[in-house]
Amino acid sequence: MPARDLFHQAVRHALEKEDWIVTHDPLHIELPDIEVYIDLGANRLLAAKRKHQKIAIEIKTFLGTSTMFDFHMAVGQFVNYRFILNKVEPDRKLYLAVPVGTYNTFFKRETVQEMIQAHGLKIVVYNPDLEVLKQWIN
Amino acid sequence: MPARDLFHQAVRHALEKEDWIVTHDPLHIELPDIEVYIDLGANRLLAAKRKHQKIAIEIKTFLGTSTMFDFHMAVGQFVNYRFILNKVEPDRKLYLAVPVGTYNTFFKRETVQEMIQAHGLKIVVYNPDLEVLKQWIN
Repeated sequence: MPARDLFHQAVRHALEKEDWIVTHDPLHIELPDIEVYIDLGANRLLAAKRKHQKIAIEIKTFLGTSTMFDFHMAVGQFVNYRFILNKVEPDRKLYLAVPVGTYNTFFKRETVQEMIQAHGLKIVVYNPDLEVLKQWIN
Repeated sequence: MPARDLFHQAVRHALEKEDWIVTHDPLHIELPDIEVYIDLGANRLLAAKRKHQKIAIEIKTFLGTSTMFDFHMAVGQFVNYRFILNKVEPDRKLYLAVPVGTYNTFFKRETVQEMIQAHGLKIVVYNPDLEVLKQWIN
């Protein structure tokens, strides 16, 4: 299985371990003049509030030759998907899934942290080998 | 010459026809933890104000197999470059150079126009064959 698909499966399994139900793989959104596919859509029942929490996840492997270019693409997809998602389903929150290795080396740099803040990125850090979620960053 | 380089030269020549002086090709910006290369930096003397107008231009060809993915990449680069440029040279304005064919077919769509507004993209539309600038959109 290509690494891209392995990472996709790892995030899906990691979500399921935390009681998320994957409802869309991928999540297809179609507007009259544009359509996009976001990697995953998932729901989880918040028992205390008796309501469903809804998310969409754009999964990134950061396996390209340039982490910086992978980051540009991730940011572009995130801000465009968030804009489109907000039009059709504003209560579904978008997250960027980032492998823990890339998070620790690249995402922790001061300037990258500032860009994450400036763009309002929400991130979920995952371990592709253990198939677990390490951290949610809102 | 590859199409990418032809488009790059076309934008450079088009700027020079309008009295811009290309000062950087590319414009290299280095922070302690990150570095980026923006395609062009240019200056023009505003005689009336007796001061220099400074721009940076990210040139896009939109020759990829998916216009949507080229757009995601363009937006990601734009918002990241703008953030970094603002730290080191806040009076230099960043523009995305878009070929007129792509502008007329893709960029004029309602949702794309809304995204351009939401992200605050500045655009310069160019004709790659005639090597002229068609429109500046602020």
